[in-house]
Amino acid sequence: MSNERYQKGIEKMREQLGPDADQYVEAIREFAPWFAQVNVEFAFGDIYGEPNSPLDKKTRKLITIAALTTLGHSTPQLKVHLDGAKKMGVSKEEVVSVITQMIAYAGFPAATNALMAAKEIFSD
Amino acid sequence: MSNERYQKGIEKMREQLGPDADQYVEAIREFAPWFAQVNVEFAFGDIYGEPNSPLDKKTRKLITIAALTTLGHSTPQLKVHLDGAKKMGVSKEEVVSVITQMIAYAGFPAATNALMAAKEIFSD
Amino acid sequence: MSNERYQKGIEKMREQLGPDADQYVEAIREFAPWFAQVNVEFAFGDIYGEPNSPLDKKTRKLITIAALTTLGHSTPQLKVHLDGAKKMGVSKEEVVSVITQMIAYAGFPAATNALMAAKEIFSD
Amino acid sequence: MSNERYQKGIEKMREQLGPDADQYVEAIREFAPWFAQVNVEFAFGDIYGEPNSPLDKKTRKLITIAALTTLGHSTPQLKVHLDGAKKMGVSKEEVVSVITQMIAYAGFPAATNALMAAKEIFSD
Amino acid sequence: MSNERYQKGIEKMREQLGPDADQYVEAIREFAPWFAQVNVEFAFGDIYGEPNSPLDKKTRKLITIAALTTLGHSTPQLKVHLDGAKKMGVSKEEVVSVITQMIAYAGFPAATNALMAAKEIFSD
Amino acid sequence: MSNERYQKGIEKMREQLGPDADQYVEAIREFAPWFAQVNVEFAFGDIYGEPNSPLDKKTRKLITIAALTTLGHSTPQLKVHLDGAKKMGVSKEEVVSVITQMIAYAGFPAATNALMAAKEIFSD
Repeated sequence: MSNERYQKGIEKMREQLGPDADQYVEAIREFAPWFAQVNVEFAFGDIYGEPNSPLDKKTRKLITIAALTTLGHSTPQLKVHLDGAKKMGVSKEEVVSVITQMIAYAGFPAATNALMAAKEIFSD
Repeated sequence: MSNERYQKGIEKMREQLGPDADQYVEAIREFAPWFAQVNVEFAFGDIYGEPNSPLDKKTRKLITIAALTTLGHSTPQLKVHLDGAKKMGVSKEEVVSVITQMIAYAGFPAATNALMAAKEIFSD
Repeated sequence: MSNERYQKGIEKMREQLGPDADQYVEAIREFAPWFAQVNVEFAFGDIYGEPNSPLDKKTRKLITIAALTTLGHSTPQLKVHLDGAKKMGVSKEEVVSVITQMIAYAGFPAATNALMAAKEIFSD
Repeated sequence: MSNERYQKGIEKMREQLGPDADQYVEAIREFAPWFAQVNVEFAFGDIYGEPNSPLDKKTRKLITIAALTTLGHSTPQLKVHLDGAKKMGVSKEEVVSVITQMIAYAGFPAATNALMAAKEIFSD
Repeated sequence: MSNERYQKGIEKMREQLGPDADQYVEAIREFAPWFAQVNVEFAFGDIYGEPNSPLDKKTRKLITIAALTTLGHSTPQLKVHLDGAKKMGVSKEEVVSVITQMIAYAGFPAATNALMAAKEIFSD
Repeated sequence: MSNERYQKGIEKMREQLGPDADQYVEAIREFAPWFAQVNVEFAFGDIYGEPNSPLDKKTRKLITIAALTTLGHSTPQLKVHLDGAKKMGVSKEEVVSVITQMIAYAGFPAATNALMAAKEIFSD
């Protein structure tokens, strides 16, 4: 059972983060296996795999970028998700527009830091 | 000029907040006219009216709900936007799915408070 | 199965929140069943029921009070946990000492708001 | 000695909060005496009474309003400080201009909530 | 018109940030021109150029340092503003006193990180 | 008098941070002596040295790790406290379990960043 939830989770994780998903989990697991397991099973299996959710994977991605921009302190996770967005086919223009909208809710400093992260990922 | 930016802003504001937009601005203006003016001209005119943005009004709404849920301290603004979402035709299921996704980024307390606000707005 | 995780979760939830746990979940479930389910299964079943955790239920409770005080915007959840703490046998002095320690990390306003919540719960 | 720090603290507190200072402390002390003591001795005696500080009491007040607006979750403390500002002779225009400046750093929701608190205090 | 707002904004920006202002905007513009434009026109033109504001440029600077210290996650912007403060003639003692005051509102970790940023800028 | 508070503070600080405590204070004092003094006297002398507190030093440490994880923006202070925890005899399993619990309150990004800091300290 746990196995089934894990499989669903790791698939959703690869969908959202791209091929770096496995390496991301591995860095956590070698230090904290239970944390890694709930990260896959809950954050991706349960949340991104919510049954009957009306949200498609791209909308979810934009929403996550909005949340990570607003948090302000999560640059590493933001970069992983921005990279996943790029690989998923989200355009630079979409990402920039989401981050720009966040100025109104989280202020310029948080939005500017997110923009600089996006510049790094999308300028490659 | 300023007039044109203001007109564009108030239109976008009505699109996002519904008919309560004017009353929302008025409550601010009678105490702080400059704050009210930049709220309309910048937050709605410049941000929601960004030229050539690839985001449609519904995607912007879901992104705003994600941001307000993450902030945690903005229940009044969240309710105004949730009410605007309902009037715009965003479904309860979409709103709940966005808020549920926020559990992973902002934790249960912030997400639960947002959910209770949504329950209040969408249970009417 | 999901059923087993749910049972484990609701037991841990009653241990942490006391008899109000079921009512707390019910208020969520009638509006958002999936949110309620992951709240029980993940937040309580997986996290408070972590296999081989060295933390006892009282230490977990003090840690949660520290986190909710630091967040600053989660007074409803803080009150539920403070009430659970009281029913679990955590003393007023322990709760106050945790909140006082938070002054150093989260500042006086967040700590004072938490203290006023504790005053409400522990003065009954 | 502690007595001397306390006296200095309560004087600074009355300077910043006005005549409500004593009542503010009393509400804390009857539940948590040590918290009340460090609130007076440290927050007001040590911080507002910093030896050789180049900041005058009005500048300190505006800075505190900026901080409380940015935190977003501290409306009760913000109202106490806004009331103290009014009694100290800080004008409505100064307070509104500080809060408006915060839009750029903390976003519209936090600034709007602070503005509504100021409207309540300064409209009397 | 936009041109006039932009000119006002870039002048206020140079007043607040010093000669690095243009380079700061340029780093944003080459990736996100609209973000750069609203950063200049709104954050500096509208906010720092608020008509009839009773706040002088030095008070505004101290207020911004208070806000950026409180946010906790905005070290790059804090450094730019600290450098602008130094060039504007704000003393090390004033900056340190503002940051020390923030201990009471945002806690030691946020204040200490801001202090270390100030040490870097003012020790040159 | 101040001397007595300072001595009590620096002892509590060495208890919590280990031998790095003196160097930590020194880095602050050479730039801002008053900040360093209140950091020792208040944060450690008054808070960790609270008279009649029912909390032992290990419980205080776990509570601090919970708070610093929740803040999200305080990695330097978190590492200092994690190192102090290790030297105090707190196990890796205890630290990881506290950080894992924080997923529920502060979300995955804040918890993951804290976990990576713990991995760095406890993998030596």
